[in-house]
Amino acid sequence: MAQPSSQPAPRPTLGITMGEPAGIGPEIVVKALADPAIRKLAKFVVFGMNELMAYAADLAEIEPYWGRIQHDSPRTNFDFVHDVIVLDYDEFSLLGQTIHQPTRQGGQASLAFLKDATEAATPGSSRKIDAIVTAPICKESWHLAGVKWPGHTEMLQALTHAKRSVMMFCAPKLNVALATIHIPLLTLENELTIGRVFDPIDLGHQALVAMGYDKPRIAVCGMNPHASEHGLFGDEEERLIEPAISAARELGIDVSGPYPADTIFIDAIKGRYDLVVAMYHDQGLIPVKLLAFDDAVNVTLGLPLIRTSPDHGTAFDIVGKNIARPDSLKAAIRLAVKMAGGR
Amino acid sequence: MAQPSSQPAPRPTLGITMGEPAGIGPEIVVKALADPAIRKLAKFVVFGMNELMAYAADLAEIEPYWGRIQHDSPRTNFDFVHDVIVLDYDEFSLLGQTIHQPTRQGGQASLAFLKDATEAATPGSSRKIDAIVTAPICKESWHLAGVKWPGHTEMLQALTHAKRSVMMFCAPKLNVALATIHIPLLTLENELTIGRVFDPIDLGHQALVAMGYDKPRIAVCGMNPHASEHGLFGDEEERLIEPAISAARELGIDVSGPYPADTIFIDAIKGRYDLVVAMYHDQGLIPVKLLAFDDAVNVTLGLPLIRTSPDHGTAFDIVGKNIARPDSLKAAIRLAVKMAGGR
Repeated sequence: MAQPSSQPAPRPTLGITMGEPAGIGPEIVVKALADPAIRKLAKFVVFGMNELMAYAADLAEIEPYWGRIQHDSPRTNFDFVHDVIVLDYDEFSLLGQTIHQPTRQGGQASLAFLKDATEAATPGSSRKIDAIVTAPICKESWHLAGVKWPGHTEMLQALTHAKRSVMMFCAPKLNVALATIHIPLLTLENELTIGRVFDPIDLGHQALVAMGYDKPRIAVCGMNPHASEHGLFGDEEERLIEPAISAARELGIDVSGPYPADTIFIDAIKGRYDLVVAMYHDQGLIPVKLLAFDDAVNVTLGLPLIRTSPDHGTAFDIVGKNIARPDSLKAAIRLAVKMAGGR
Repeated sequence: MAQPSSQPAPRPTLGITMGEPAGIGPEIVVKALADPAIRKLAKFVVFGMNELMAYAADLAEIEPYWGRIQHDSPRTNFDFVHDVIVLDYDEFSLLGQTIHQPTRQGGQASLAFLKDATEAATPGSSRKIDAIVTAPICKESWHLAGVKWPGHTEMLQALTHAKRSVMMFCAPKLNVALATIHIPLLTLENELTIGRVFDPIDLGHQALVAMGYDKPRIAVCGMNPHASEHGLFGDEEERLIEPAISAARELGIDVSGPYPADTIFIDAIKGRYDLVVAMYHDQGLIPVKLLAFDDAVNVTLGLPLIRTSPDHGTAFDIVGKNIARPDSLKAAIRLAVKMAGGR
């Protein structure tokens, strides 16, 4: 008979990437990790810049609570005494720079944070952290730094050589996974396939189980008005969506649809479904943002590592004003901890 | 100097079509018009069936409050003493029929109500009513009755020979007009034109002015994710949507966009816009239904007559249980009165 452990479960170690240095990343990271309730959940390694963290803490009148280590120091074996360590990339110092806007240097910095955090979280003998939580990057800074990928999700899929990746959003009353993301709407004709519909069902199901759902109930949106009313307004439901649902059901997944997209989200927030799979960006994001603007968490599924992020941007317009709210980052941290614990 | 009138503005006369006889139409009409606050707003002519109204009133313990006239009686000059008259189509009697489902006879009945109400509301010397409010019809009943049109909007456009028609939804905090409605999503490629984007801006503007908005502020959605980020994910914004916005601005309409559809509805419900123009069905209907399920009013723009309707269906499953709520029908009546008064 198994003995109940007298030890509490060990806290996971989370990597936090500070994102665009000129954005609100430093401020929300400092504020989120200053919360004792958050600190109880995990140990934290921030991939970022100490000077910006210290500046944000000063503005917010938060006593610095972290240890600093140079990111390429031989001491970075990740076995720290501190609850919070900042791996400092001071070669990207923005000291003296007061304009909050996209820069090549900012892009290089946020890229370095992400690459190193991804490497540290990738399973294998060199794995040092259990999950990564990414603060917002600036696409324009990445572009200036020569990065080809439009965002975190695509970059992470490339860095980890993942075959599939799915963007999912978790809001207090609604989880939504997307079959397609940043493509012109009309290219759905070529991009939407049975596999593209199957992936968010399958990966969404796995993720929800990892989050502690016993047998997640999944609803799949149709693509056309009224889910085409049995072929009256299009055939994608019959050709692509129904076969994907059938394949997932054969794996034992509790999934149904396709449902008219204009009413299925109401059923979901009433608690009848744990996840809605949307066919395209706006179909899924309109309800997520309407219900939970700034409180939704973005999760990348299909990677070998756990990655969550807040669902907001760099907010250059409010940088340095000490008014950025860390709520969405805290929600992203909580979800990463939950997923790390469930593995 | 103009003298303020000592007379109250004359109440408009509204035509109410009872819709599918086997649905909840009779019940919600009886309940809505039993409300003294609604009766103060207008005089009412119901195009429907007396026996079903009486039965619904009996179930709801409402004392019959209306006068009955045979619809083809020579007395139907619409100059009634009663506040509420039922123009009775007893040739469609469903007496003895207890199953609430689509029938050919039901389709013929709701079609007759709609045709006659439309004729009575069409401007000209024979015009007898100021607006029509339509209770839900059953598409399957219409189909059984040989009707070619998929719904009220298309039928009304045909009956009135209107060159343009636009479907608009009015909810307490959100008005949305649609550029396209019941078409397969991917046929947007052929169906979305500059004119199709211009019409809901132009007709929506006119309608909002008729409702009493001084200078309505209109926001137009993009079609692609993030409104294509300046062409990154599609060119419909530049090719079709921006020219339509420019054309409308040249007419003096306060319209802007295209905006990312996943955030513009948030700005609208915060009060920054009076109307959002959506490019396709689900883009507009997902937020309307999420925010105001059962309280939204459907308005057809572009017709020579005023037409509103509740945004719900025949609800066969709850017929005869006296639990149907007349709230959406009341909202449709209030809006029709407002639009009739504003002309």
